[in-house]
Amino acid sequence: MIPNWLLQRAYLTPNRMALSYEDKRWTFQQLLDEASLIARKLRWNGLNEGDRIALLGRSTPEMVFIIHGCLLAGLEIVMLNSRLSSKEISWQLDDCDASTLLVDDEFVDRIDELSTPKLTFAAIGSSGEESFSITKVWEPSRTITIMYTSGTTGYPKGVRQTAGNHTSSAVSSVLNLGLAEDDRWLCTMPLFHISGFSILARSVIYGMGVRLYEKFDAASIVEEIENGTVTRISVVATGLQRILEQFEKNGSVAHPSFQTMLAGGGPVPDDYLRRAQAYRLPVLQTYGMTETSSQTATLSSEDALRKSGSAGKPLFFNQIQIRDAGQPGDFGEVLVMGPHVTPGYIGHASERDPLEDGWLPTGDIGYIDEEGYLFIVDRRSDLIISGGENIYPAEIENVLISHPLVKEAGVCGQDHPEWGSVPVAFIVGEEKLTAPDLELYCKQQIASYKTPKAFYFVDELPRNASNKLLRRELKEWAKK
Amino acid sequence: MIPNWLLQRAYLTPNRMALSYEDKRWTFQQLLDEASLIARKLRWNGLNEGDRIALLGRSTPEMVFIIHGCLLAGLEIVMLNSRLSSKEISWQLDDCDASTLLVDDEFVDRIDELSTPKLTFAAIGSSGEESFSITKVWEPSRTITIMYTSGTTGYPKGVRQTAGNHTSSAVSSVLNLGLAEDDRWLCTMPLFHISGFSILARSVIYGMGVRLYEKFDAASIVEEIENGTVTRISVVATGLQRILEQFEKNGSVAHPSFQTMLAGGGPVPDDYLRRAQAYRLPVLQTYGMTETSSQTATLSSEDALRKSGSAGKPLFFNQIQIRDAGQPGDFGEVLVMGPHVTPGYIGHASERDPLEDGWLPTGDIGYIDEEGYLFIVDRRSDLIISGGENIYPAEIENVLISHPLVKEAGVCGQDHPEWGSVPVAFIVGEEKLTAPDLELYCKQQIASYKTPKAFYFVDELPRNASNKLLRRELKEWAKK
Repeated sequence: MIPNWLLQRAYLTPNRMALSYEDKRWTFQQLLDEASLIARKLRWNGLNEGDRIALLGRSTPEMVFIIHGCLLAGLEIVMLNSRLSSKEISWQLDDCDASTLLVDDEFVDRIDELSTPKLTFAAIGSSGEESFSITKVWEPSRTITIMYTSGTTGYPKGVRQTAGNHTSSAVSSVLNLGLAEDDRWLCTMPLFHISGFSILARSVIYGMGVRLYEKFDAASIVEEIENGTVTRISVVATGLQRILEQFEKNGSVAHPSFQTMLAGGGPVPDDYLRRAQAYRLPVLQTYGMTETSSQTATLSSEDALRKSGSAGKPLFFNQIQIRDAGQPGDFGEVLVMGPHVTPGYIGHASERDPLEDGWLPTGDIGYIDEEGYLFIVDRRSDLIISGGENIYPAEIENVLISHPLVKEAGVCGQDHPEWGSVPVAFIVGEEKLTAPDLELYCKQQIASYKTPKAFYFVDELPRNASNKLLRRELKEWAKK
Repeated sequence: MIPNWLLQRAYLTPNRMALSYEDKRWTFQQLLDEASLIARKLRWNGLNEGDRIALLGRSTPEMVFIIHGCLLAGLEIVMLNSRLSSKEISWQLDDCDASTLLVDDEFVDRIDELSTPKLTFAAIGSSGEESFSITKVWEPSRTITIMYTSGTTGYPKGVRQTAGNHTSSAVSSVLNLGLAEDDRWLCTMPLFHISGFSILARSVIYGMGVRLYEKFDAASIVEEIENGTVTRISVVATGLQRILEQFEKNGSVAHPSFQTMLAGGGPVPDDYLRRAQAYRLPVLQTYGMTETSSQTATLSSEDALRKSGSAGKPLFFNQIQIRDAGQPGDFGEVLVMGPHVTPGYIGHASERDPLEDGWLPTGDIGYIDEEGYLFIVDRRSDLIISGGENIYPAEIENVLISHPLVKEAGVCGQDHPEWGSVPVAFIVGEEKLTAPDLELYCKQQIASYKTPKAFYFVDELPRNASNKLLRRELKEWAKK
């Protein structure tokens, strides 16, 4: 059994700082008070223990209160990515069968036409309250969050993340990173992503403060790292690059109390690592995914350059192996096992077992060297990682193919100086079709970061004998 | 599933310091090498996965290698208290049905007459080796250690401590105490006790070094605390008192890097706490027992004086309640729940379920105050805690009653300036019986620390209407 996180935390360390945002701050007791109020209001609105709701909001304190309010009320939260198009949100809402959509008033115009009953944050705030008894302990198998992630099929799958998954992830991480009473984790990652949500989970499990930013603001972030007002931060390569530029500009270094820059969502260039050292930023590269509720493996900062390009070793409770690898260095699919691995999906993919003989096949290709360090050689064959967001070509191709003038479509990533990679499309279509047509068509249906940044019209796509699209070949075309 | 502790730890941080003793030190890789060698030798001696062995040794590096060797070989270890008499050891060996007794050569003369096959440490060292494949992950329910603890019946019960119990205990503790990469835990507690064994478990789970002492040496311990060569230590009140005296003598204070003095095995006098503050020793009082694989609750050092006498709040994964308490402050039996609580006993007590509705009744009487702090008012009715060792009057009474000239016997604790408490006996017996007779008789059968320090001859014992011995009344007599 796992204690109800916030209830236990507020009991153990009520007066410790839990959350700060701009010039406001809340202790764990105050966070519990805010979240309990929300929970009672959610109950008053007919939401009960075990109900599944969807949540669409920004990274604000209100969002944190609502997340914890949902957990106190015993709700499963489907975390919606606020960058998605209305059509994508609608698809996920249908798939997850959420009883209610809790939505930040800022986003109300985007969900006008949805059939799911809505409850705006303002409506929650002004609603009545219903007292109830909060469940004190959770079964480890209890679903806490559901996050959608696409796969090779192009249809996003709702990944269940249980109390056991999140808790073991937080605990594994602390055995690797350590913990001090004055730790503060700066969160600029979206709360609907596992990278952001996992910071909230660590906060209540560790009794650690979260310094929340709604938007990435390099100048302020660097000021906090210089002054020692935060000790840990999660970044993707794009954010790290902006932080490095700011340090260059300031001519400063990190405060000695600064502990960890956890860099996920894809590889970090060597050049960044060298520069980070100069500013005394301990960069820890990590390998994780939605299905593993954050980190599976993490590279220690002292090994950052010696083992450049490696994702490190597994965290204490996790195991990694390479499919069919006979000896160190053999390439193969990365397989992951541990208490942090999802038990499965919901909705259309609910029948699918994510595990094979207890191991999660990640689709990523990698190897383990003689010292046991994991190297990811190729992300899930076709995955495009753009500024930390995962983009699945098949999903975009599905949209393109649905256009009446498109005959065939192939999407792949193209290197990009700021985002690491961006999607581009190769199209076989009618003559009158134009790139602006396709761009508009895409933006009406998918998130803008998924919309191809270039459309190349070609006579045919590279295919193998069995007519399968050769994505590697597409990538070569994209380099020209 | 839980990774095989040492195997995973040596993989993750092979070069970190694992153990030091006098002027010798071992990294985790070296510890694994030593323990693997022992494991292969144990295999060669016919000990296989799942076998139960008993272990009688001192707190030496060799003992640490053998403990980890047993775990690698998949053995259940019955930890024998080296202070016990031959008769007591014999009783526990019969009860636990261990296939083999692994014994330090120093103790060989004490186990001459036992029927259990013996394997001395020297014999292990000189034996052959048999290669085998080490089990990489453990079921949480796997029994790791068995420790005997007496109860009100006077017959010691073998408590199962599983991989899940020890692991969750270590993890709960780290969320309370924090963790730094250069942490070193000084261990002067016996390794056969949960207080000592739990330090070894934390070491491999955290990747933390253990500084091992075979004997309590106040001068050396204080020197290490002054110099910052250790950051944590576990003590009982008696040890704390000696450490304070040493600081007084040295006129020094603890090194700023010193983090935690975990004080268990009974209450710590206020006067000690005040003096500890003066030497910058953060004393954390803790409440735990063999059945809970170390700490259930711990009082933070900042609350030490404000909440004097309290055992603090539960660790994150644990729950505490007071039986039938209607409101804060109500007295009652302390009930404990959590993943650290034993699933049960072996041997004669194996049919006994330690839990009632999922809660462990501790037998201790206490209350929880309005802020949620636990106070232990009265240890398991009759428990005598002497220098951190638990002594059960019923066990000693059983021995006394077996003497042909004793008619009735009642044992209770008497305050003692150094040990906190010592056992004394009230005897109704034949006229020719003398105290030296009884002392000799006891020492032949039970550990010397359990032998009453005084024998009072009386005409009758205080009993209630149903003839039950009134121990509280005995305690009053002992004060006269």
